[in-house]
Amino acid sequence: MRIIIDGMGGDLAPLEPLRGAAEAVRELGVEMIVTGGEAKLRACAGENGIPLDGITFVDAPRVIPMEAEPTSLLKEYSDCSMAVGMKMAADGEGDAFVSAGSTGALLVGATFLVKRIKGVKRPAIGTMIPAQGGRFYLLCDAGANHDCRPEMLTQFAVMGSAYYEKIIGTERPRVGLINIGAEETKGTELQVAALPLLKNLPGIHFIGNVEARDLPLGGCDVAVCDGFIGNIVLKLTEGMGKFIGGAVKEVLMQNLKTKLGALLIASEFGAFKKTLDYKETGGAPILGVTRPVIKAHGSSDARAFKNAIRQAKSCVERDVSGAIEAGVARQKAAARENV
Amino acid sequence: MRIIIDGMGGDLAPLEPLRGAAEAVRELGVEMIVTGGEAKLRACAGENGIPLDGITFVDAPRVIPMEAEPTSLLKEYSDCSMAVGMKMAADGEGDAFVSAGSTGALLVGATFLVKRIKGVKRPAIGTMIPAQGGRFYLLCDAGANHDCRPEMLTQFAVMGSAYYEKIIGTERPRVGLINIGAEETKGTELQVAALPLLKNLPGIHFIGNVEARDLPLGGCDVAVCDGFIGNIVLKLTEGMGKFIGGAVKEVLMQNLKTKLGALLIASEFGAFKKTLDYKETGGAPILGVTRPVIKAHGSSDARAFKNAIRQAKSCVERDVSGAIEAGVARQKAAARENV
Repeated sequence: MRIIIDGMGGDLAPLEPLRGAAEAVRELGVEMIVTGGEAKLRACAGENGIPLDGITFVDAPRVIPMEAEPTSLLKEYSDCSMAVGMKMAADGEGDAFVSAGSTGALLVGATFLVKRIKGVKRPAIGTMIPAQGGRFYLLCDAGANHDCRPEMLTQFAVMGSAYYEKIIGTERPRVGLINIGAEETKGTELQVAALPLLKNLPGIHFIGNVEARDLPLGGCDVAVCDGFIGNIVLKLTEGMGKFIGGAVKEVLMQNLKTKLGALLIASEFGAFKKTLDYKETGGAPILGVTRPVIKAHGSSDARAFKNAIRQAKSCVERDVSGAIEAGVARQKAAARENV
Repeated sequence: MRIIIDGMGGDLAPLEPLRGAAEAVRELGVEMIVTGGEAKLRACAGENGIPLDGITFVDAPRVIPMEAEPTSLLKEYSDCSMAVGMKMAADGEGDAFVSAGSTGALLVGATFLVKRIKGVKRPAIGTMIPAQGGRFYLLCDAGANHDCRPEMLTQFAVMGSAYYEKIIGTERPRVGLINIGAEETKGTELQVAALPLLKNLPGIHFIGNVEARDLPLGGCDVAVCDGFIGNIVLKLTEGMGKFIGGAVKEVLMQNLKTKLGALLIASEFGAFKKTLDYKETGGAPILGVTRPVIKAHGSSDARAFKNAIRQAKSCVERDVSGAIEAGVARQKAAARENV
């Protein structure tokens, strides 16, 4: 399997994507194609003693800046490391694409270069978020589409459900609609209109509205919402983790007694903290496009890139794109029958 | 000062509101008026040895059920303990009103019985949420108005700012608009339209968009949003606290070594946990009505009720309603000048 990685994407490029790629070759048994300035990448590898077995470079020295208009990926920056990598994925020269570059540009590239799966209206970002008892829920859409129509939410349910089932291995994952109460009349026009559509989706285990409180408590496996709500949920989860984590650390460093206590719980506490670490869970898939595209966190280090590559590999092996295509087709067929 | 409390509101009524009222008389030096079934309340006081000094009962045995249509407070349930208490507040027979009953009904009563402050379009719920460094931010609207126009968000800013300044004592609190990025073009139509209006508010220290990630990290003092987003933020904060709190507890109980560690950090950890406890922070004010109305948490115990009463007392003493009226009038005057 050949995974393409954007060697220039992210705060720590090119060193960390390159190290991540080298680790992936060694540990995951994949071939890696790294796009970016080849001279720069080779120099970086040399300086840092990174082995280049199993790595092919494709020279694309230009980088799309984080602040660039996303659609400029198709115009001024059509030769940048991200665009070149996505075109290769689209042409089958690699099986999946990973980048820690601009989310907006990545979405544009996924949609217009890698291209949507037949029947998919709008690709969405899925993000796995840790929950109680070592579980995860998939937040979908985690930020791609801010203004949504009800039909879009039904596709997020179908795509998210297919992804969760393939990647986590849970059959018929519980799909919930993020809302402000359990009752069917709750929410804005969007939620009220989406609820009956979600209920009637063929092959989807829809469990109704789910309140934000129940998301970290394992209330559903796939949490469906528009991208504005998704961004709020994702970012607040991050912020709460940082706030509580920092406060606990402060408690533990307060005095000699607590410092001793901290020593005693260090290894067990570290194991829990690891479950919350985005660097462990990999990146966020862009769902609904013909080949796996994984958005790695902007501040990804080698370990985070390696895990994002691992996730891309799983998506290819388990044919997530095929499962989404089948799910969307099933939804279309059922809609035609109901007309 | 006389504070009215709904003796029948909340999961633990009538015992806990009654105990809370008695503690408030003793510790806060207020007189309490308790509405509800007088016979039942007196019997409850007798059985539990609750002293009744400083407490007056007003007989109103009917209770509005949690699942009742909120507007039924004005019709079928116009003689219930909540409605009777709010009418007394409106008539000046008490200075403020506290209830742990249905939020929807309380909003209806606040709006149509206690009545809106002149110029206020829609009352909003404000909720103080703990943040980094022992700070708090006021989330407004925390769930009263799901579909908002941009002008409503400006009033939430004015009302929230007045409340924060009076209750926390921070001059010119930093008001932020909850959004998905710092740039002015970010968000849905609502945020994009509200931003310039918020920037031009007289006397308000508006700092621009604030991302959800920065809320628990102290990014602003007053976080403005529609009630749908507010509910998501409030509930997710609760859920995250419960999830991480539970997980930390599990870590500490894992084995003998961690249990010993837990003993060593117990008192310091307890102090931090207390800062996150809603029972300490009191209830959520309904902002924009002529007298303070405080919504206590549905599962409030005596301590939570006492703290909600303390908060009601502070609102009266510091004339929060007057400050809101002045702020709204200033906003109106500025709007007229700009026409």
